[in-house]
Amino acid sequence: MSAFLAVEYSDGKLKLIDQRMLPIETQYMICSTLAEVIFAIKDMVVRGAPAIGATAAYGMLIGALTMDGELNIESMRSIKSALDASRPTAVNLMWATNRIMEALGQMIEPTRSEIINCIEEVANAIYREDATFCKTMAVYGNTLIAHGDTILTHCNTGALATVAYGTALGVIREAHYTGKNIKVYADETRPRLQGAKLTAWELVEEGIPATLIPDSVAATLIRDGKIDKIIVGADRITSNGDTANKIGTFMLSVLAKVYHVPFYVAAPTTTIDFDMKSGNDIEIEERDAKEVTHIGDIQIAPEGINVYNPAFDVTPHENISAIITEKGILYPPFEQSILNIKREI
Amino acid sequence: MSAFLAVEYSDGKLKLIDQRMLPIETQYMICSTLAEVIFAIKDMVVRGAPAIGATAAYGMLIGALTMDGELNIESMRSIKSALDASRPTAVNLMWATNRIMEALGQMIEPTRSEIINCIEEVANAIYREDATFCKTMAVYGNTLIAHGDTILTHCNTGALATVAYGTALGVIREAHYTGKNIKVYADETRPRLQGAKLTAWELVEEGIPATLIPDSVAATLIRDGKIDKIIVGADRITSNGDTANKIGTFMLSVLAKVYHVPFYVAAPTTTIDFDMKSGNDIEIEERDAKEVTHIGDIQIAPEGINVYNPAFDVTPHENISAIITEKGILYPPFEQSILNIKREI
Repeated sequence: MSAFLAVEYSDGKLKLIDQRMLPIETQYMICSTLAEVIFAIKDMVVRGAPAIGATAAYGMLIGALTMDGELNIESMRSIKSALDASRPTAVNLMWATNRIMEALGQMIEPTRSEIINCIEEVANAIYREDATFCKTMAVYGNTLIAHGDTILTHCNTGALATVAYGTALGVIREAHYTGKNIKVYADETRPRLQGAKLTAWELVEEGIPATLIPDSVAATLIRDGKIDKIIVGADRITSNGDTANKIGTFMLSVLAKVYHVPFYVAAPTTTIDFDMKSGNDIEIEERDAKEVTHIGDIQIAPEGINVYNPAFDVTPHENISAIITEKGILYPPFEQSILNIKREI
Repeated sequence: MSAFLAVEYSDGKLKLIDQRMLPIETQYMICSTLAEVIFAIKDMVVRGAPAIGATAAYGMLIGALTMDGELNIESMRSIKSALDASRPTAVNLMWATNRIMEALGQMIEPTRSEIINCIEEVANAIYREDATFCKTMAVYGNTLIAHGDTILTHCNTGALATVAYGTALGVIREAHYTGKNIKVYADETRPRLQGAKLTAWELVEEGIPATLIPDSVAATLIRDGKIDKIIVGADRITSNGDTANKIGTFMLSVLAKVYHVPFYVAAPTTTIDFDMKSGNDIEIEERDAKEVTHIGDIQIAPEGINVYNPAFDVTPHENISAIITEKGILYPPFEQSILNIKREI
């Protein structure tokens, strides 16, 4: 497992790494009331889709445990609504609370303790599944890594975003734990600097030899043969293998292709949108200009300048060497290998 | 001319835009003593090689004008030493003060007013030459720009770095002034953010339609046909056309080549190192890790992370479509066109 856990539940208490304080301080927030869990999600104490899902699931449990009045499906529904509203765009959040409500829906007039047991079981299952997904993906991905490899990664795809291990960074962890003597370059990942703030922190915590670089430095390292493999995560993969991921990923994929460096995407099969034909159909979210014009409270650009700040870019499938999933490694032609996975699920 | 002048001399007073305050405030520093000029260079009130050269030249003049004791070659030599020490790595600074000392060396027992007249003449010549170089380069470069072009640029190569106009940004200015209805994308240029802080400020000041982007956004714009031309500056050009410029330039050149976007370098012929055979011979300066781990006083990366922070990268000549100089536009094969320029100089 990781040297730390972003999300950890025990005995009515949810322990979260306070990601707002990283990378300067490692502080934990202990949530023992529903209000505290809602605050943690809303204020981004916890971030990353799987980590938010697990947090919300345990939020349902803590909500039930600390319920003053009668505990029944109706009261659970209002706890769910409160949690869902804490970050309405987080798909995993609603997916987790829905899953719990569905399980509760199966029961006929359950007692208080039956409700609590049911929620705890589902929450633990969600948590365990994510950890297992990541670990399995990491084991598969590690078969692609050679002893002594230098690996470049982008953004944060680590244990902070999941309940443990991570996706792309999970593969890097596994390679390190299995003694492959790897080195890592981490892109700082402008504008939100998740590479500098989170990935660099995880790598230092784990004691993995790592170097932080401005995003534009990667090109020279790739050309000069200093990078053996590139591994990134994915926000969405379409049925032909086109992959939307953090802005900056596409640029790396072009350089990887020109200079013949393997380019891997690591993501669970839940990331695959089987109904979407290609990356052309992906709508790219445009984020607040302030992410570019300010860092913290420091203004770094003049008043009146336009800003274009897309959250993601799309890497075409022909730039991707393989997609690492919890069901195994997919190789081109991705249209076929993704279809095979779809049949399997 | 530009909408503003970074360096402007009149009547014993040197007026400088205080570049430390940009892009938040447009303040000027008026230097009327040698100590003030030295402070302005040392504290980076003024930056950019040509701008520093002109400032130092007028620093010699102000030093002479405000000299209490006897004014002779000996006292000018000590003024030169004081100026040279203000930023010892700035080649243009010493080049400017040397040029003045050489002119003074031609005179036999000059009077105070002869000394002052001679310095003023050389300082004005240095200033005028830089302005003329830039303007000529801009006029040549503008012949490459079509009506309605969208141009991508990197770092700051503008009027703030020169006495007026700029190099790559000078071409953009000229296209704008001649009514070509251009649009500009400016890379923020991590880690020092010269694009966000300085280029964006110049573009807003000039009223040129411009959009600021994180460096890694350029790749998608280039692929999607949103960029018609890329123009960058140069720190050094070798005799085969390989070009060292701000980190991030090489990445743009690869994308330009893959997606068939013209990639232009704008630089005076003084930037060409005729004795250097290729980019392989260029030593890349590595800068302080703090430029990457901190922004202002805000720490953005964890303690203990390694950083690789090269100031420049090298763009191979085969990725460059043309080099715009004050002597005309050079086309491939650059080995030949640069040799022709060398013969001309």
